[in-house]
Amino acid sequence: MSSFPSKLIERAVDEIAKLPGIGKKTALRLVLHLLKKDSTTTTHLTQALIDLRNQITYCTTCANISDNTICSICSNPRRDSSIICVVEDIPDVIAIENTGQYKGLYHVLGGVISPIEGISPSDLTIDLLLTRASNKEYPIKEIILALSPTLEGDTTAFYLNRKLKEFEIQTSTIARGIPIGGELEYTDEITLGKSILARTIL
Amino acid sequence: MSSFPSKLIERAVDEIAKLPGIGKKTALRLVLHLLKKDSTTTTHLTQALIDLRNQITYCTTCANISDNTICSICSNPRRDSSIICVVEDIPDVIAIENTGQYKGLYHVLGGVISPIEGISPSDLTIDLLLTRASNKEYPIKEIILALSPTLEGDTTAFYLNRKLKEFEIQTSTIARGIPIGGELEYTDEITLGKSILARTIL
Repeated sequence: MSSFPSKLIERAVDEIAKLPGIGKKTALRLVLHLLKKDSTTTTHLTQALIDLRNQITYCTTCANISDNTICSICSNPRRDSSIICVVEDIPDVIAIENTGQYKGLYHVLGGVISPIEGISPSDLTIDLLLTRASNKEYPIKEIILALSPTLEGDTTAFYLNRKLKEFEIQTSTIARGIPIGGELEYTDEITLGKSILARTIL
Repeated sequence: MSSFPSKLIERAVDEIAKLPGIGKKTALRLVLHLLKKDSTTTTHLTQALIDLRNQITYCTTCANISDNTICSICSNPRRDSSIICVVEDIPDVIAIENTGQYKGLYHVLGGVISPIEGISPSDLTIDLLLTRASNKEYPIKEIILALSPTLEGDTTAFYLNRKLKEFEIQTSTIARGIPIGGELEYTDEITLGKSILARTIL
């Protein structure tokens, strides 16, 4: 993929190929698609990205991405404001929302504690979470830690659990076990072991 | 993927997901990537696309995409201007250029004849090719038809071959056969059959 017939194409391909998971071949395919389509296709796409980047704000309560200072979840009176589900980032909020099983609020950490990547607790929205936990006017009953079962996720959960101890709030983590539809014999031993220890009484 | 926390995100995801081969999940991943990066990343990307769409032109000789009225291949004095390689579209030019095996010029048809998709000869740059073929000042010795071995590609090659008969130009097609590194026993019968009929004397 060395020679492009045009510097304009080369530049567009280079910029698109900077996006994660997109190589030069895919980038060229996208560029040629845009050239075949009406120029409004390009205008709509680029304007949506520019508006997003310039106008996006973050909810001052839960740090989720939002069009306003308070996001649509935090400002929804039908949500249970006594439960907070702590997640690593925005896709987790969307994933949990799509289950339709959760009616509480969220808190977006913006990452997990990772000494290797140089992410310390102060880089995350932990102080904002502690402020919410200490709010006497709207008391929180439970904080669910919905973090990935990785070393960093577990470290963050451990850190948060210790920090939240001073408040009279129940903390919990989402259940780990065999995924629905998963085959028992192909499940890794750690998950299988945890699923036996955390068995549910019928 | 129904509920997004922001209309701005939803719009950006929708626009990106209109691109071929990109679904809503990938689109969301790209959008969140742009939000995490400096706003210059978005500016550079969108500006490259806008410039591409607004400034791109097509070579008036070969119909390849170009920054000028004559593309860098047609205007290169070191290319053999007596040979034209006819291809379906721009990626084919890039693919052949990357082989480093071809030093002639190109002609980009902009598609292949396809009655099903409603593409007739007049939708392609065939007239431009015939004008090039009839040029007495810079005579063409050979026209290579490098089209895909599909029904539409073969139809187009047949049509072009008939049209080019009136000029004293040799026409050829690129060789079909077993790909280098391909296993004989896994090659389809049609390709294998053609490779026997078109065998090369050693």
